[in-house]
Amino acid sequence: MNSFGEIYRVSLFGESHGPATGVTIDGCPPGIAVKPDDFMADLSRRQSGIRGTTERHEPDLPEILSGVFKGFTTGSPITLITRNRDKISSDYDEFKNIPRPGHADFVAKIKHYGFADFRGGGHFSGRITWGLVAAGVIAKKISEPSDISAKLISAGGSADINNAINETIAGNDTIGGIIECRIKNPPMATGEPFFYSFESAVSHLIFSIPAIKGIEFGSGFASAAMKGSEHNDPFIDENGTTATNNAGGINGGITNGNEIYFRIAVKPASSTGVRQTTFDFAKKEMTALEVKGRHDACIALRMPVIIEAATAIAMADLIMIDRGIHGVRKY
Amino acid sequence: MNSFGEIYRVSLFGESHGPATGVTIDGCPPGIAVKPDDFMADLSRRQSGIRGTTERHEPDLPEILSGVFKGFTTGSPITLITRNRDKISSDYDEFKNIPRPGHADFVAKIKHYGFADFRGGGHFSGRITWGLVAAGVIAKKISEPSDISAKLISAGGSADINNAINETIAGNDTIGGIIECRIKNPPMATGEPFFYSFESAVSHLIFSIPAIKGIEFGSGFASAAMKGSEHNDPFIDENGTTATNNAGGINGGITNGNEIYFRIAVKPASSTGVRQTTFDFAKKEMTALEVKGRHDACIALRMPVIIEAATAIAMADLIMIDRGIHGVRKY
Amino acid sequence: MNSFGEIYRVSLFGESHGPATGVTIDGCPPGIAVKPDDFMADLSRRQSGIRGTTERHEPDLPEILSGVFKGFTTGSPITLITRNRDKISSDYDEFKNIPRPGHADFVAKIKHYGFADFRGGGHFSGRITWGLVAAGVIAKKISEPSDISAKLISAGGSADINNAINETIAGNDTIGGIIECRIKNPPMATGEPFFYSFESAVSHLIFSIPAIKGIEFGSGFASAAMKGSEHNDPFIDENGTTATNNAGGINGGITNGNEIYFRIAVKPASSTGVRQTTFDFAKKEMTALEVKGRHDACIALRMPVIIEAATAIAMADLIMIDRGIHGVRKY
Amino acid sequence: MNSFGEIYRVSLFGESHGPATGVTIDGCPPGIAVKPDDFMADLSRRQSGIRGTTERHEPDLPEILSGVFKGFTTGSPITLITRNRDKISSDYDEFKNIPRPGHADFVAKIKHYGFADFRGGGHFSGRITWGLVAAGVIAKKISEPSDISAKLISAGGSADINNAINETIAGNDTIGGIIECRIKNPPMATGEPFFYSFESAVSHLIFSIPAIKGIEFGSGFASAAMKGSEHNDPFIDENGTTATNNAGGINGGITNGNEIYFRIAVKPASSTGVRQTTFDFAKKEMTALEVKGRHDACIALRMPVIIEAATAIAMADLIMIDRGIHGVRKY
Repeated sequence: MNSFGEIYRVSLFGESHGPATGVTIDGCPPGIAVKPDDFMADLSRRQSGIRGTTERHEPDLPEILSGVFKGFTTGSPITLITRNRDKISSDYDEFKNIPRPGHADFVAKIKHYGFADFRGGGHFSGRITWGLVAAGVIAKKISEPSDISAKLISAGGSADINNAINETIAGNDTIGGIIECRIKNPPMATGEPFFYSFESAVSHLIFSIPAIKGIEFGSGFASAAMKGSEHNDPFIDENGTTATNNAGGINGGITNGNEIYFRIAVKPASSTGVRQTTFDFAKKEMTALEVKGRHDACIALRMPVIIEAATAIAMADLIMIDRGIHGVRKY
Repeated sequence: MNSFGEIYRVSLFGESHGPATGVTIDGCPPGIAVKPDDFMADLSRRQSGIRGTTERHEPDLPEILSGVFKGFTTGSPITLITRNRDKISSDYDEFKNIPRPGHADFVAKIKHYGFADFRGGGHFSGRITWGLVAAGVIAKKISEPSDISAKLISAGGSADINNAINETIAGNDTIGGIIECRIKNPPMATGEPFFYSFESAVSHLIFSIPAIKGIEFGSGFASAAMKGSEHNDPFIDENGTTATNNAGGINGGITNGNEIYFRIAVKPASSTGVRQTTFDFAKKEMTALEVKGRHDACIALRMPVIIEAATAIAMADLIMIDRGIHGVRKY
Repeated sequence: MNSFGEIYRVSLFGESHGPATGVTIDGCPPGIAVKPDDFMADLSRRQSGIRGTTERHEPDLPEILSGVFKGFTTGSPITLITRNRDKISSDYDEFKNIPRPGHADFVAKIKHYGFADFRGGGHFSGRITWGLVAAGVIAKKISEPSDISAKLISAGGSADINNAINETIAGNDTIGGIIECRIKNPPMATGEPFFYSFESAVSHLIFSIPAIKGIEFGSGFASAAMKGSEHNDPFIDENGTTATNNAGGINGGITNGNEIYFRIAVKPASSTGVRQTTFDFAKKEMTALEVKGRHDACIALRMPVIIEAATAIAMADLIMIDRGIHGVRKY
Repeated sequence: MNSFGEIYRVSLFGESHGPATGVTIDGCPPGIAVKPDDFMADLSRRQSGIRGTTERHEPDLPEILSGVFKGFTTGSPITLITRNRDKISSDYDEFKNIPRPGHADFVAKIKHYGFADFRGGGHFSGRITWGLVAAGVIAKKISEPSDISAKLISAGGSADINNAINETIAGNDTIGGIIECRIKNPPMATGEPFFYSFESAVSHLIFSIPAIKGIEFGSGFASAAMKGSEHNDPFIDENGTTATNNAGGINGGITNGNEIYFRIAVKPASSTGVRQTTFDFAKKEMTALEVKGRHDACIALRMPVIIEAATAIAMADLIMIDRGIHGVRKY
């Protein structure tokens, strides 16, 4: 189940320490201008080197294996890969029998009967989101003129994000954060009842991303405490503009033309440097675990571009269902 | 896009004031005992008559059109319908040009170019969840011995739910609420990376339900304010039991055998009795609107059984992907 | 797996002697004129009463349960049902342990662990094609101005079809036949590489129909004996018209604008009146079987309209993938 | 639409003269032994060098990018690629405006609005079947102990295949052929009614392969000339063995345990060396065309292994739907 989308279909592959990580995009209309540099900005935002994230430097511009010819998409599947480098697999050997609390080590072993590539988190690694971001670059072109923009609005419960991260690094620990995503100029009437509402499509994709634990659209959880007379957004003109926007731009699962916004809860990375207790499944006894190696103090710092990509992919698919390949011709 | 599921596939149909509402369940294994009475408890919980919900009485036990023979599922598609009765369509006539704020009236008209059945909310009505609850009854049998239980834990921001509803009825308004759902004895290692994580499947289905605006798994939004050393759940035995359960029973999108829990934000129903302003799209001017007729003061009261059904359907599909039709034989 | 189609999605349900047989059509664009009489012509062609087919008379115009409002499709799922009447289930009792040679009795019992509704062939009955024909009526509207026309061109190996059927009835036996289907004014460039070629879509659907054993497009099996210089169809004008049409209007899985044609082999119905040997699975010994009751001498007589429906459904789905819901607006 | 399969899902990518050709296999159970040499035999059978096919030598063992760890599948997607070499793109320049009769040149240009990579047939090239054969190698492991074997039984209408090919080479032309495929020890009760019958799954995949124009199962087109009393296969023992096998091992779309067999018509390659007429779409006039370069005299020679692969993939998917990932564990 490593594919998403009915028409604009994104398939991810790769394991953290395997030969390569990549993505295939099927259903992309022909004639969209694509060059390797287009991926630079988003892949750099995702990449490490930012204060608070790991120090690894992964020069990971995509190699385009198919689907682009003379600078334009051909209409055939686009496969993009990046080689995995700078791998120190020995870091991970001990987790085979002593799973890290909060990590997928334990379930991956059971799910895959012990055959999963456990190195670096394998297919459960954040590394796999590389393909998501790459596919998002093209999805954003399909979604134009919509403008999708996500940012980190708090970390570890604080709006002073720099300070929160400094304290976390000092404590050798990790923290979570909250991302807000906004879509300006959204397409009108996008979302397919009953089961492919705008929120269904977006949340499906976003809960595929490791470490996401919550999502709320518009006034979200706060709306549960509101009255209908407060929450309802009055229409004020013939374009359907509303005076307030508690709905976050979505009624009945369908976009109403007003700005779309939603917030996402990112849990702290499980690979903390703080000493923890866990169970040794070989020796069948409790044990202490100290995770060494290089890890992110705040994975939420890398997340905005991943959230944008997931949103763009969901939106591109919904747009293509409505308009077809003909309808999203961009030239 | 009125179907959900890869193997256990649920398809909804019907409009609020059309001839019938129904559901087809494809991919259900043969040999599961099903009789009409099995649907009584859950459909009654969904039904009106509860204080705070509408006064309509819908005697809506299913007619089984196919897929059940001599009291057992046959392995062929199960179609269940209920006739729509007690319809007062004239209640809705005025909303064609004067869309109710917060409701799908406006987007439905654009989406379907004016051809949507607008009576009673048409295909956007909460009435459509009848089929979801009916499909959930069978999905629960597939998911056994898991026990899925949802309840309303606050309404209008208050844990004193009765009082909150009384005040709302007095004010002729509506309120939202928060539902908590818990799954005891969940299946181990259920969830399919990358795109069909347990959270992805559940949130996809739950955001299809009208009025849902947020979902959080485990410690959810609170986890964004936590440190990794706090959030991680230490394993304490060889079954994978954890000392705490911030993860809500899910690591890396896969169930870890501990109790699963999540919370859902339900917005207040948009059909409030309080006078509101909106736009008259025929006259092209602002206008006032007073929604008459019978409506729910707190739609969240009806929601727990719908949330259980959606959860059971998502879980049944994930179980069947893993085990196949053979693997879920129940006899 | 009782659904077909990526966007125009058809789901069949029902068992021959169950309460009803039906179909749900999801993904149909809003605004297509549909009235019950539209189904008359095609459902009558499918129906019995024709010389050579069974004598049962099934007054089977559809009841429209959803998706049509004021004479037009709403954009929501269309569910059509017909009640099963005139059922003589006792005809079939003996086949539980003594499966009819050539029939699905044997495999259905194993597949569904003995829970299948065996009466009248259950979900394997030709009765299930009622929904296919009904869905085809709407698919033909989507496929307009294409004109799809199928006819029986031989029966029992003879072009004198009347004579062949008379002889078969006299011998209390059954015969097969060959259907030819032609599509005039086909859409240009329809078919999606690699896996959803025009031939893939059509053959997938057609091999779902009971009793189909072969299909060939254009010069088909004869092309295997041809040279490339003979088989290639020269282009003769700027519309892509070809001088010959060995390709049957399809190159590389995509329609080229020329007439599409293909032929289909229908085997004789297995329910022959001639005495046969088979195995008694209860007594574990060979036995003789004489199938009583009313059956078709030549099921291929009913097939043309079913083949047209299957073709229209496949074509409607391919058209909608290409053009989207917007692109096939008909008003 | 470059993916096939509900659970065992194969996605193809690549263009003939692009950087690489490849395949991703999703849904493969963990723990299946896979090493590069396993692909040697089947990829060699597909490869050129055989008399009658092109002289190109493509050293095309797969590079395994993901999904295999320590010699076993991990349960995550398996991506296999091969670099395209030995490309002489100038051979193809003239076909942009002067499409080869019988080839996809014309439709590809319209379908992809002129953006398709036309070199070497691009994504329509037989080269793309490399990934199908590679995915088939793993699908055969899942389908064990079934034994799938296809062979060329006639070429250009003659059973003396060598002679037919020699004459074709001498005439600088091409010929078609007929492939027969047999499956010994097939799985029992495989095939999912209504729309995913065994024949539907196999024919869907096989009609994706370039140059296929017909398929018939069991006695196929000949059955149209038979009587029911002749065609029916009597059961003779409690395993369901039949005395004859006109059904080709399939009743009602479901395997009955007897040997499965079917035949496939392959048209002659359109790239013949014989001078042909076609239309010059730039000059808008008829013209003569002589296709130079290296091409296959009889593409059907390469086909048996491709047909086996397609069959294995369809069968693996049907088996996995029935048994789930657990049910096909091989260790």
